[in-house]
Amino acid sequence: MKISVVKNIMEANQRIADENRQRFSRNRLLVINLMSSPGAGKTSLLEKTILSLKDELRVGVVEGDIQSTYDAERIGRTGAPVVQINTGGACHLDSNMIQEALKDFDIAPLNLLFIENVGNLVCPAEFNLGEDFKAMILSVAEGDDKPLKYPLMFHESRVLLINKIDLLPFCECNPDLIEERARNINPDLTIFRLSCRTGEGLDRWTGWLKEQIKQ
Amino acid sequence: MKISVVKNIMEANQRIADENRQRFSRNRLLVINLMSSPGAGKTSLLEKTILSLKDELRVGVVEGDIQSTYDAERIGRTGAPVVQINTGGACHLDSNMIQEALKDFDIAPLNLLFIENVGNLVCPAEFNLGEDFKAMILSVAEGDDKPLKYPLMFHESRVLLINKIDLLPFCECNPDLIEERARNINPDLTIFRLSCRTGEGLDRWTGWLKEQIKQ
Repeated sequence: MKISVVKNIMEANQRIADENRQRFSRNRLLVINLMSSPGAGKTSLLEKTILSLKDELRVGVVEGDIQSTYDAERIGRTGAPVVQINTGGACHLDSNMIQEALKDFDIAPLNLLFIENVGNLVCPAEFNLGEDFKAMILSVAEGDDKPLKYPLMFHESRVLLINKIDLLPFCECNPDLIEERARNINPDLTIFRLSCRTGEGLDRWTGWLKEQIKQ
Repeated sequence: MKISVVKNIMEANQRIADENRQRFSRNRLLVINLMSSPGAGKTSLLEKTILSLKDELRVGVVEGDIQSTYDAERIGRTGAPVVQINTGGACHLDSNMIQEALKDFDIAPLNLLFIENVGNLVCPAEFNLGEDFKAMILSVAEGDDKPLKYPLMFHESRVLLINKIDLLPFCECNPDLIEERARNINPDLTIFRLSCRTGEGLDRWTGWLKEQIKQ
């Protein structure tokens, strides 16, 4: 009984995710579902990425938070179009929230849409939103054991961004070990090391991102 | 329909939490449900706290993780009795998991039991386990906006430990702002600032903890 309820939720989510994906595809829009723990640097990465690419790409953002419009205001200051979802308690975004949020959001002029998920290294990994791929951020301040303990997130992501590398001298964290453990779970991961604070490594990420844009 | 399912889950959780609480109370055992984002320092805090109090208190630990026994092994090396729960995907502990885990775990000799929850700043706050109180850790590397975005965790906790203060010179984080925003949500919070890495501030926390032990 309990299992069939969960299955129905997941089936309904997948059906709407497929509808979202078709809409994105018709618009030749690259959509990235960005996930991480709270405070790993999702919004900072988006700010830096948008400002770096603003002359080349048209980027939009869907912001997911339990409450507040704090992150949407940060993104808004970059000049990018943004819509905020408040989940009102829910610990992840689902495909229906995305469909609702995009009803009055004009995706036609965009090349790239980021969906910033709720800060949570667990639940968001289970829900497809219709994205082209999932990307995750891990801050080195979180330690190098996270792939062992939160494997689904690493398994579902196509990209791993190891952020805050400027803090490496002050943290007990070996980024080689993060990469090794992450690749044991998902050998196909594309991995970037960067610091949104200092800007180190951002150009490799934005360069790679431009190659993914749909023509 | 959906709401009634959630209500039944929460009622069942509360009933078993009450049973756990009665068992803890009969044993004059102080039980703390420790919550945070992944990598904020829960296990490090427990290691330091156990080692600091080992001559005065008998401390046990229930470790909650989605998978792996990595944290339980770390705790085991301190000499404290420990039991590991693997949730197998679930993003929080519930009271039934605690009841099962403690069936063959001798709590009689203990003064203090820590339950280390799954690393998640959202879902664990919703589930009572039978603890005396909830304590949460926030790492300064996560930023000072977290009370705005994850208010339930701050609302439900009696203690806030602001960890990794040795990283403050390298992070854009104002700990006064964390305290102000957290107290706006929960004026009764007891707050400690500390660094598990350098040991700064740990003595205030362990001193306070000793005063909470049941006689």
